[in-house]
Amino acid sequence: MEIPEKLREVLKKDGVVAIATLGEDGPHMVNTWNSYVRLTTDGRMLIPAGYMQQTEANVAFNPEVLVTLGSSKVPGKNGPGTGFLVKGTAAFVTSGPDFDALKATFGWMRATLVVTIRTATQTL
Amino acid sequence: MEIPEKLREVLKKDGVVAIATLGEDGPHMVNTWNSYVRLTTDGRMLIPAGYMQQTEANVAFNPEVLVTLGSSKVPGKNGPGTGFLVKGTAAFVTSGPDFDALKATFGWMRATLVVTIRTATQTL
Repeated sequence: MEIPEKLREVLKKDGVVAIATLGEDGPHMVNTWNSYVRLTTDGRMLIPAGYMQQTEANVAFNPEVLVTLGSSKVPGKNGPGTGFLVKGTAAFVTSGPDFDALKATFGWMRATLVVTIRTATQTL
Repeated sequence: MEIPEKLREVLKKDGVVAIATLGEDGPHMVNTWNSYVRLTTDGRMLIPAGYMQQTEANVAFNPEVLVTLGSSKVPGKNGPGTGFLVKGTAAFVTSGPDFDALKATFGWMRATLVVTIRTATQTL
């Protein structure tokens, strides 16, 4: 899908990304930084994974993922500050171009978490 | 429970909080700002709720909630930047001291989301 320009702006600002998955033991959530997320031209998010073992196990069980991200420094719908709720499907990739593209920058990562975006809704 | 001092430091910095709940239709996630969260002396988080209708419906179905928050400006375990995963139970409150305490500051809010913290784990 077409990624909103405002979401690209958010990723240029300092901030925390939250990634929620649902496994057999219930929901789980991990964080990364806005500055770590890469967007592909075909509408996917690439996120370096250092730990994220529970997230990986959950994705194997149920690939649906929710991601929120925002910045108080990007104008939103109700004044300063905006946020997005991204829904999509996730996969962990440990080789190939989506892995190599990030590994060069994030030497500590063990995998790329690839999120194929279905919807990206501006919530603020 | 005793709230970690570092979590209090995070709330003093600019940042986005993510709140995940699980309803009959699956997980849902909403955001608020670090600066909107108040901590009580007995270990609860008070969060002003403007919309959050889906979150409220989910909490009525299943009170378990996950909250993540962080700041790149507070030193963490692996260098600059820290984050927390909070697990607890949530309730929406529309009157009484937990409501009044926030309503004076956040005139737009319709309820206080009260999170009773069970664990607060530093993840970064």
